[in-house]
Amino acid sequence: MSDDALVIFTPSGKRGRFPLGTPVLQAARSLGVDLDSVCGGRGICSKCQITPGYGEFPKFGIHVDDEALSEWNSVEERYKSKRGMIDGRRLGCQAKVMGDVVIDVPPESQVHKQVIRKSATAREITMDPATRLLFIEVAEPDMHEPTGDFERVQRALAEQWQVDAVVADLAVLRRLQPVLRKGEWKITVALHRGNRDTAHRILDLWPGYHDGGLYGLAIDLGSTTIAAHLCDLRDGHVLASSGVMNPQIRFGEDLMSRVSYAMMNPGGDQEMTAAVRTSINGLVQAIATEAGVDPASVYEVVFVCNPVMHHLLLGIDPVELGQAPFALATSGSLALPAREMELTAVNSAAQVYVLPCIAGHVGADAAAVALAEAPDKSEDMVLIVDVGTNAEILLGNKERVLACSSPTGPAFEGAQISSGQRAAPGAIERVEINVATKEPRFRVIGSDLWSDDPGFAEATANSGITGICGSGIIEAVAEMRLAGILDGSGLIGSAEQVGTDRCRPEGRTNSYLMFDGSATGGPVITVTQGDIRAIQLAKSALYAGARLLMDEMNIDHVDRVVLAGAFGAHISPKHAMILGMIPDAPLDKVASAGNAAGTGARIALCNRAARDAIEATAHEIHKVETAIEPRFQEHFVNASAIPNAVDPFPHLAAIAPLPEVSYNTAGSEGRRRRRG
Amino acid sequence: MSDDALVIFTPSGKRGRFPLGTPVLQAARSLGVDLDSVCGGRGICSKCQITPGYGEFPKFGIHVDDEALSEWNSVEERYKSKRGMIDGRRLGCQAKVMGDVVIDVPPESQVHKQVIRKSATAREITMDPATRLLFIEVAEPDMHEPTGDFERVQRALAEQWQVDAVVADLAVLRRLQPVLRKGEWKITVALHRGNRDTAHRILDLWPGYHDGGLYGLAIDLGSTTIAAHLCDLRDGHVLASSGVMNPQIRFGEDLMSRVSYAMMNPGGDQEMTAAVRTSINGLVQAIATEAGVDPASVYEVVFVCNPVMHHLLLGIDPVELGQAPFALATSGSLALPAREMELTAVNSAAQVYVLPCIAGHVGADAAAVALAEAPDKSEDMVLIVDVGTNAEILLGNKERVLACSSPTGPAFEGAQISSGQRAAPGAIERVEINVATKEPRFRVIGSDLWSDDPGFAEATANSGITGICGSGIIEAVAEMRLAGILDGSGLIGSAEQVGTDRCRPEGRTNSYLMFDGSATGGPVITVTQGDIRAIQLAKSALYAGARLLMDEMNIDHVDRVVLAGAFGAHISPKHAMILGMIPDAPLDKVASAGNAAGTGARIALCNRAARDAIEATAHEIHKVETAIEPRFQEHFVNASAIPNAVDPFPHLAAIAPLPEVSYNTAGSEGRRRRRG
Repeated sequence: MSDDALVIFTPSGKRGRFPLGTPVLQAARSLGVDLDSVCGGRGICSKCQITPGYGEFPKFGIHVDDEALSEWNSVEERYKSKRGMIDGRRLGCQAKVMGDVVIDVPPESQVHKQVIRKSATAREITMDPATRLLFIEVAEPDMHEPTGDFERVQRALAEQWQVDAVVADLAVLRRLQPVLRKGEWKITVALHRGNRDTAHRILDLWPGYHDGGLYGLAIDLGSTTIAAHLCDLRDGHVLASSGVMNPQIRFGEDLMSRVSYAMMNPGGDQEMTAAVRTSINGLVQAIATEAGVDPASVYEVVFVCNPVMHHLLLGIDPVELGQAPFALATSGSLALPAREMELTAVNSAAQVYVLPCIAGHVGADAAAVALAEAPDKSEDMVLIVDVGTNAEILLGNKERVLACSSPTGPAFEGAQISSGQRAAPGAIERVEINVATKEPRFRVIGSDLWSDDPGFAEATANSGITGICGSGIIEAVAEMRLAGILDGSGLIGSAEQVGTDRCRPEGRTNSYLMFDGSATGGPVITVTQGDIRAIQLAKSALYAGARLLMDEMNIDHVDRVVLAGAFGAHISPKHAMILGMIPDAPLDKVASAGNAAGTGARIALCNRAARDAIEATAHEIHKVETAIEPRFQEHFVNASAIPNAVDPFPHLAAIAPLPEVSYNTAGSEGRRRRRG
Repeated sequence: MSDDALVIFTPSGKRGRFPLGTPVLQAARSLGVDLDSVCGGRGICSKCQITPGYGEFPKFGIHVDDEALSEWNSVEERYKSKRGMIDGRRLGCQAKVMGDVVIDVPPESQVHKQVIRKSATAREITMDPATRLLFIEVAEPDMHEPTGDFERVQRALAEQWQVDAVVADLAVLRRLQPVLRKGEWKITVALHRGNRDTAHRILDLWPGYHDGGLYGLAIDLGSTTIAAHLCDLRDGHVLASSGVMNPQIRFGEDLMSRVSYAMMNPGGDQEMTAAVRTSINGLVQAIATEAGVDPASVYEVVFVCNPVMHHLLLGIDPVELGQAPFALATSGSLALPAREMELTAVNSAAQVYVLPCIAGHVGADAAAVALAEAPDKSEDMVLIVDVGTNAEILLGNKERVLACSSPTGPAFEGAQISSGQRAAPGAIERVEINVATKEPRFRVIGSDLWSDDPGFAEATANSGITGICGSGIIEAVAEMRLAGILDGSGLIGSAEQVGTDRCRPEGRTNSYLMFDGSATGGPVITVTQGDIRAIQLAKSALYAGARLLMDEMNIDHVDRVVLAGAFGAHISPKHAMILGMIPDAPLDKVASAGNAAGTGARIALCNRAARDAIEATAHEIHKVETAIEPRFQEHFVNASAIPNAVDPFPHLAAIAPLPEVSYNTAGSEGRRRRRG
């Protein structure tokens, strides 16, 4: 009989020969098999559970004996009786190799679990967060070989977890001695592993083995909305997602008006910094309460945001971002203690990571989108549009990636729209207009029924029908164009021209009545000519940015389009194309990615290597500055037409022919021309 | 004619050949010649002044032509006319090598200036502080190659000063953009270079070239006294030295009583931490005011202290230091922001460095003494005694160094002495007693006259004669023993036994009258039997510690003794030896080193490499724990006699024969025995 045995791990397929008596965990580690352990093999944490396979394995050409592993031992017995264990499972640290064996590592025993995203363009997140819980046994003090308790903790981390050069704040050092003694020299530490220049740092510690909450926040700080995901750093699970309005809106709706506010009002930047930090602290409290976790167990916060938000979050006056050459104070990623940013709601030792900015107008949010959607790994030419108050646009493939930002304004988020509102129950989110009758039907958030379905009134009795949200206004305008209510220049026809009483004069222009709730005390919801103009401005800015990148790339069409953004998932690709928000493309090649910036933040939260990756990628992305490019204006003017005055939309024409109408002579333009 | 030339630098003797036209500064740098420059060769800072030598240099075998350097240029002209320059000097960055030349670098142009200490055991300090001012020219932002301003500052530091991986706090980033623009892309930064795991960090910045204040504090935090030196980090000059009483005295006079206070009173450790930090902030203010500098221009603070002070300074409960195995929470050196220690008086970005501790009873102060006195480099066997409320004792040579601490109590600092006081004007500091008449004479701080000199009364009229300080009580007790007023066991004889009315009964013991000021409303200053007992306890502890180290080293005498401590410089070696504070040694081999711990702190403040050195040395020093060593008690009991009941003092006997008197039968011992 041989004195070593073949061990094959599934699903990895990794294999090797080991001396009889080798614990399975040790074999897994020496082969680099992804088998979890917090306690380092001491039979405490039970994270290293494995399932041995017995019998014939023709695939591997081996037979596994019933005695291939050592007998069930007292540690396993105790664990199973106390906490339960699936039949057939063993603890990898206790079971020893006694013969050739096939070992399956179940998904929950893998450290680097894959977290599957639901989105169509899903990328898996490999769990390898910067902060982890590590159990260590620390040597007791010896008067004759005097070293500090902390120095022995450092040694334990180096020997038991191969982590060198660990530091700790005074607040942690202060608690070290009682915790060590209470745990009888066995403790669990929350260790934050630094990148590059940042040291490894103990953020917290507990006596004995501890498997309590260890959470992180991924925050997408937008001009209008602050969205946060609360993630369990142990398995990547999202416990809660929540958002609040950015309180800086009161200082200015869009980025440039906030920069102006800072320029005009001494200390204005600090006011805005204080406002957003207070809001974030409130959001942290709210999301933690929603998930039923203690906000003090949040140890990491990752931020993505555009450059102006970035500077205001960090407490840096954004004035330079308001004028060429749009110099960022700092463009690199930032790793710093949360307390330096006055994030008091999270753990006092929590660490912040801010993704790198790409340029003065293309921020960490664009970097996050690049991380989530990986245009730099795409085989085909992809256009990624992150729709928001400020749009981030990426174009490229694995050869080259370009980026720009475009100031679309808040219209896509329902602001500056007469009946606009944020996406909340009661808001109209889907619209269809009958081409023949010009009659609309719609759906509101909170119900799956259309407004002409039976039971709609009952289903929406609670929420009411309150206004139109961002995706709703896009569909409404596109459907109006499709039904001939709107002409190519964006003018709403009169009742007479269009042939419906829903077109009503409003001042010198017309509006279209979507819903009249006045009989029951509800609102009258119309789409006004002003709303159309606001959407035209927004979509022209978006399209012009995309077109500018296509010029730079020297292409006249793209292979596919990804619509991203806080409400990107809700935008109908067809309607976006009818509007001319995005360039013409086959409809099945236009996908929604949801909040890609938020996803990028989550990836950076859950995987340290992703931080290094995006820092490298951010350097590679070529930035195009829209603000100073003369062709931007040209594209912008052409894009004012719906879908476009110049660029052809052949794929769109094939699926949705747009009526050739013109309301110009009877419209405001005509009247104005006469007055001139 | 050759197209290169020989350049010889003095005093270093470094030489090399350089192409004609090479600036002298560049030649110096490439040879590693120590020539200062803050502006990096831009003709701004004038730190690189050199003196060319002309004519014959037989020593070097060359002739230096009058045209060996390029002509005096407009930059030099402007500098000289504006700020003046010594005749014959040139700016090293402007003068170019045009032929063989000998260049002298005057001391003030050397970066690593030597700071000469005044003390007898002087070691020179080479200036290489962690924090320096660096002038840089930063590239302007380019919209087409977007990088953050900070990233361009990083690049400038890497390219112009070879400093990589520089970080900055948000507070500095916040000020970066306006400073860069005000300085027209030329700025000066205060750069703190980290050791090992600590990043290089920009602490402050100014537009243009800045040569303002850049100061550091070396603080010796003792149980009784907090002593600080304010140093100019540019040249090592000590601007002011000052001290305050440690406010923790109210919680306990010695270390163990403070540990007890923390054990008995929940939150007591935090009270003591707050007290000492407040005091240090006050001291910083006071010393800065004294020196006429802004405390906000203090960028570095170095601390040395014993382990209990160390923990209380850092906010760590010292309870573990009160019981075996005397485990330190942390023994390594610490580098942290001053604000983490609530040192608010210094610059908000100031950095703290705390020297490493050697063991639970041998702290950073002992490490500092080792740094200042370098026993590990000594050829002969040296005993270094740092006298204070807790004494640090080092014994060794370049082969091996031992250390221990001994709880002497505050008697040597004038506390627990009936007429004791701190060293201040009016305190008796020197004492002589006439062996024949038993009459004393003395000197007080503030006057060089002896009390029997003409004019003494006038000279001390202002200060008065107020008490006895530490060095005074040592001399008084030793002189009393020498004059036979005190016997070998430490008993004061009666008037009858001694033959002077100055010996007076006080309760059941006798005291000796040093000074009677009662006629003029002044104090009556006596040395009581209680004072003698206090000094006996203190000196026995000191001696027993030293003796224990000698046992461990297996020696029965030492080659030399260094007396250190805040008042070490004031202790008379002869009197210390009569007392038996220190082992017998040739008197000319007993030296005073002054506040060696404070000097060690200054060395660590002014020279970064010294920090690495002491961290390595602290590991090498072998620690002897007095508290658990049975022989310590034995040595302690023997050392109670003056000078010692057992150990011979041959060198002492040769210079100061002690009278063989015994007052035991008439003394308190005798009486007590009769009562028993």
